[in-house]
Amino acid sequence: MIIYEQPLHEKIRLFLRLELLAKRFRHHLASDSRTDVLSALTLLLELYNLSARIDLKSDVIKEIDRTSQSVRRVIAETGEQDTALEKLTDHSNLLYQLRGPLGQHLRSHTFFSSLRQRASLPGGINGFDISLLNFWLEKEVSACKADLQRWSGPYMQTADAASYLLSLVRNYCDGNEHVAKAGFFQLSLKAPYQLLQVILPDNAGLYPEISAGKQRFSLRFVEMDLLADRGKQAADNVPFRLKLCAF
Amino acid sequence: MIIYEQPLHEKIRLFLRLELLAKRFRHHLASDSRTDVLSALTLLLELYNLSARIDLKSDVIKEIDRTSQSVRRVIAETGEQDTALEKLTDHSNLLYQLRGPLGQHLRSHTFFSSLRQRASLPGGINGFDISLLNFWLEKEVSACKADLQRWSGPYMQTADAASYLLSLVRNYCDGNEHVAKAGFFQLSLKAPYQLLQVILPDNAGLYPEISAGKQRFSLRFVEMDLLADRGKQAADNVPFRLKLCAF
Repeated sequence: MIIYEQPLHEKIRLFLRLELLAKRFRHHLASDSRTDVLSALTLLLELYNLSARIDLKSDVIKEIDRTSQSVRRVIAETGEQDTALEKLTDHSNLLYQLRGPLGQHLRSHTFFSSLRQRASLPGGINGFDISLLNFWLEKEVSACKADLQRWSGPYMQTADAASYLLSLVRNYCDGNEHVAKAGFFQLSLKAPYQLLQVILPDNAGLYPEISAGKQRFSLRFVEMDLLADRGKQAADNVPFRLKLCAF
Repeated sequence: MIIYEQPLHEKIRLFLRLELLAKRFRHHLASDSRTDVLSALTLLLELYNLSARIDLKSDVIKEIDRTSQSVRRVIAETGEQDTALEKLTDHSNLLYQLRGPLGQHLRSHTFFSSLRQRASLPGGINGFDISLLNFWLEKEVSACKADLQRWSGPYMQTADAASYLLSLVRNYCDGNEHVAKAGFFQLSLKAPYQLLQVILPDNAGLYPEISAGKQRFSLRFVEMDLLADRGKQAADNVPFRLKLCAF
């Protein structure tokens, strides 16, 4: 099954981006090759940019607070206890311990500043335009990785909290089978959902173009033959599974 | 030994960027993980951007022609035959077979266009903002890699030619030991060099800030203690090896 996720709020979109960048960063950090070290570094720059213009940490903290209230309501209504509240509190405590807005520790960092100046040029992150990068990349790989681990700490803690919030949202879904007649489907959303998932069988050969607002969304299934060409809307009916998620 | 390279011409700078992006692309393409596939894809986007506003292919072809003339001159003067001329001709022939300017095959490519639209947003290259990317990333990894191989072909051929040109330049150097008094060194360049290399012992704890024009260059060795802080110019004399390269 292939899952297509669509965020229905900007906050969820932001959390998804954060989750993905953190996952990619960790993947490259796990390798001992200098090329992976460099790729991890460029992802750290993206994490920096993602949070440069917004207070991402406080967004996550606010969402933890809101979600904690939902959990308390569920506990009060059902009497069911689970570990969610505890985990949310742990994430929240960790985030409160981080000083200032996310990325503050890299704002006036000499090495990072030199990287940021070149980051927008294609191929600009390299050791001959930035000799300090060459200096750094020639350190022991373990030392580079220790630096990356330290610099990324606040981002990873925030990303872990966002991922946990996303995991709760992904677990609270209304799921139903639907058919998109001649490749088209639309639905009004009555409850304030946060995320929707469109689930198709492997090798369906088509993908959904999702256009979603808070009150309604539509799907257009596109038959993709060659990636170079524009796909065509499917002529046939397309059965799919839809999950509407919110917590 | 740590080598700091400094291009003395824009063309050489461009070739170095191309070489590095191609090397990083191939590294990630060699892995079977989807995360590496995604990183290879973002590097292909950088390769696209590197050549979007300039005719990189024709720059490389012109440099092959110029270099071939130098090789012929060396052969005429010394009577020494080597394989350089043959290899240059091979690279040139391959490049002449590529149609149009570099990246043309991706210019109106649906998948690539959708990626380019999002590439400047931090974390914008992802499967939920671009469902076509999700569709693609869910294919067999081998199929993704085959696509990347095909799409990158012209870039890799051009990068290989540029790398070969760089290898010739790197092999034709005047090398000398020097001392930077109180961390500073400058030299007038009489011949039209293409690249310079500053070579320091491992763990020197300092790196060169290189400022280079066509006729003169200066080096300031910087003592780097913490990467977060601005380094200070070395107070002591700094012995180093300098290579001036041109072909």
